[in-house]
Amino acid sequence: MAAAPVKVYGPPLSTAVSRVLACLIEKDVQYQLLPINLSKGEHKSPDYLKIQPFGQVPAFQDESITLFESRAICRYVCEKYANKGNSGLYSTNPLVKASIEQWLEAEGQSYNPPSSVLVFQLAFAPMMKIKQDERLIKQNEEKLGKVLDVYDKRLESSRFLAGDEFTLADLSHLPNTHYLVTAGGRREMFTSRKNVGRWWDEISMRDSWKKVSEMQKKR
Amino acid sequence: MAAAPVKVYGPPLSTAVSRVLACLIEKDVQYQLLPINLSKGEHKSPDYLKIQPFGQVPAFQDESITLFESRAICRYVCEKYANKGNSGLYSTNPLVKASIEQWLEAEGQSYNPPSSVLVFQLAFAPMMKIKQDERLIKQNEEKLGKVLDVYDKRLESSRFLAGDEFTLADLSHLPNTHYLVTAGGRREMFTSRKNVGRWWDEISMRDSWKKVSEMQKKR
Ligand SMILES: N[C@@H](CCC(=O)N[C@@H](CS)C(=O)NCC(=O)O)C(=O)O
Ligand SMILES: N[C@@H](CCC(=O)N[C@@H](CS)C(=O)NCC(=O)O)C(=O)O
Repeated sequence: MAAAPVKVYGPPLSTAVSRVLACLIEKDVQYQLLPINLSKGEHKSPDYLKIQPFGQVPAFQDESITLFESRAICRYVCEKYANKGNSGLYSTNPLVKASIEQWLEAEGQSYNPPSSVLVFQLAFAPMMKIKQDERLIKQNEEKLGKVLDVYDKRLESSRFLAGDEFTLADLSHLPNTHYLVTAGGRREMFTSRKNVGRWWDEISMRDSWKKVSEMQKKR
Repeated sequence: MAAAPVKVYGPPLSTAVSRVLACLIEKDVQYQLLPINLSKGEHKSPDYLKIQPFGQVPAFQDESITLFESRAICRYVCEKYANKGNSGLYSTNPLVKASIEQWLEAEGQSYNPPSSVLVFQLAFAPMMKIKQDERLIKQNEEKLGKVLDVYDKRLESSRFLAGDEFTLADLSHLPNTHYLVTAGGRREMFTSRKNVGRWWDEISMRDSWKKVSEMQKKR
């Protein structure tokens, strides 16, 4: 008997939801997507708050466990389904794993803060007819530029962030970066840095990400 | 022969450094502290940037590995020294571990952003004779208050964030919270929430944290 699919709550358009979807596809884990309509405020409903107390997407369920926080869900999926799909995503070699954790934290702590502000300002605000905040855009472009300079140096001597293989650390950058290079019009920030440009071309062409970005178009 | 002590670069006064120190003490791992003088800009020196490319503290070395990002360092220490010291800090039970990761991410993504702004504004700015930004303080008090409301609910049914035991998820909250309740004068934000107050009293009394806070006084 096949295992019941895991459940993911939230729209693929959300960056945090799409991080989890990319991970599930890489790991070849069957999932069921449950719609949560953010514009109707469904993420703040009492029932949803029981599974995601911060009122955000995604939430996740597998057998007896309910989880939130996209990066924690990805780690769980990689450990629980260690033998399925792409096993290099979250290595069991302690030194490689430490490097994955380091760059996954760099994404969460240094890359995500400026890039998520830019995703909102450059991609979502126009869609939602919200006025853009030019000062905020400039500030966060500068911050993100500095982070990308560090990445460019790292990627000069390493094919991927954590080493020779595509891992969760790279994957975690896909959602925000995708919006920045497409709707956000900031492709140049990436291609102007030679190694970052090469890295982005490689990771964004993965089948898993192509599938997620198709789902985003359909929404 | 005893293993060589691991190396931690940076001052205990730094919240991110003190997170790593608390973890090392919990795990009973010998360490050597290497001073990095932030006011002299030593964290931006070419030699230091080789081990911490973002120019921040801490950096960490153990045998052949060099790491940055305090939460990634803590995970590495717990896995590498699994059999030393407090083994509950980072459980090997997959469900407990998933819960630890969930709340450790909540700390990094939801608790740290507003609390680190408040630590700077309320505790460091006065020491450094920098003018406080009242609007920023108010904004971040509101954000942090909402996070603490979620924590208070969670801690109503659970002794610690990830379950019955003190884990890395709780530990990771010590550095910022300590500054907020002491120099920051915000003890009330925690004690006014019954379960958060009880939790804070318990985790802040751990021997590991008492040692770190003694080191901070000596600096
Ligand atoms: N740190 C969380 C962030 C989740 C998050 O910010 N989700 C957004 C959509 S990408 C959301 O739910 N926004 C609605 C809200 O915060 O009210 C994670 O990685 O899961
Ligand atoms: N996400 C990093 C943050 C490190 C960090 O912000 N360190 C501060 C001191 S607590 C620092 O080095 N500040 C100096 C600077 O950024 O120039 C970690 O957890 O290690």
